[in-house]
Amino acid sequence: MAIEQYSSALLEKAVNEFAKLPGIGRKTALRLVLHLLRQPASEAEAFGNAIISLRANVRYCKVCHNISDTEVCEICSNASRDSSLVCVVETVRDVIAIENTGVYRGLYHVLGGVISPMDGVGPADLEIDSLVERVQNNEISEVIFALSSTMEGDTTNFYIYRKLSQFDVKLSVLSRGLSVGDELQYTDEATLGRSLINRTPFKGVRI
Amino acid sequence: MAIEQYSSALLEKAVNEFAKLPGIGRKTALRLVLHLLRQPASEAEAFGNAIISLRANVRYCKVCHNISDTEVCEICSNASRDSSLVCVVETVRDVIAIENTGVYRGLYHVLGGVISPMDGVGPADLEIDSLVERVQNNEISEVIFALSSTMEGDTTNFYIYRKLSQFDVKLSVLSRGLSVGDELQYTDEATLGRSLINRTPFKGVRI
Repeated sequence: MAIEQYSSALLEKAVNEFAKLPGIGRKTALRLVLHLLRQPASEAEAFGNAIISLRANVRYCKVCHNISDTEVCEICSNASRDSSLVCVVETVRDVIAIENTGVYRGLYHVLGGVISPMDGVGPADLEIDSLVERVQNNEISEVIFALSSTMEGDTTNFYIYRKLSQFDVKLSVLSRGLSVGDELQYTDEATLGRSLINRTPFKGVRI
Repeated sequence: MAIEQYSSALLEKAVNEFAKLPGIGRKTALRLVLHLLRQPASEAEAFGNAIISLRANVRYCKVCHNISDTEVCEICSNASRDSSLVCVVETVRDVIAIENTGVYRGLYHVLGGVISPMDGVGPADLEIDSLVERVQNNEISEVIFALSSTMEGDTTNFYIYRKLSQFDVKLSVLSRGLSVGDELQYTDEATLGRSLINRTPFKGVRI
């Protein structure tokens, strides 16, 4: 199909910008732009300005490299959190996911990705040196690896493990097993096998 | 689920703005915002400015009420198009859809919706009077109704038909029948019945 013809260059430009976003095709882009057109001018302006101001003013915490409005993020500067616990994650989104579980009260370290030679990402492109430095210079008792359960995630885990094993710090990794609510028959063999090997003592309550 | 916690107010604001768009949930909004964050600042700025400038500078053609950058849109001011033919549509999106077929060389009239008492939309909220005026004051030979095939669309067709029947103008409506590529057994009864009643002479070519 040829590119659609619009009667307005302004409209076309806005649609083109939206269509650059991942997962947004030209039809969806047009729908979103026409929606914004039906809103009051102030709404569309607030939308545009929120994006511009975020990109222009965004900062990353100098301790954990999470997105932050301040030099040190809210999590790192929160005195009620356990600063001896550091959870290593790939991205900002993983921080949000773990925060939403409500069960973690330690700090984070955002690597910015995982080691992936296929994508040209090596250890130097990630915040690994700053993690080693952090463990070296602070009172950290445990580092939790919370990377994706993929080849690249496992490689990165192992790389960091080699770097950190010289220090007196406990290293742990997220448990792998059945998802909560999963039926056994639909679980893949690798996960089911791992959940058998890593079986935990039965405590008489549903976990 | 509680609203997610972000470590940055700027991030939260941008996500909130994206999540206001139709069909975009908070998770998708976060994904889009983080994508924009990974782009160069100039890209994010171009995105925001395209929206703001569209909303601030958008105009509607004074003849057909289509979106336009000028007082009279490109279609209405195109001398090579047949100005005796006017196609009545609901929205700007319908103009684009018909233009993309490549088979129509007449002009348009964008109503801005259909009569829908349930949604509080009456004839006075639509560009119906301006259509009547247009037919009255111009050399228009045919008006084509291209509204949705719904109760509201049919009501609007009939309302406009009553208004225009006093003039010497041909009134026609888009044909209804099988979609191109449809299999007979999966076509709904109403459409199949209509396509039987409105059967057309067989011309020996695939239509």
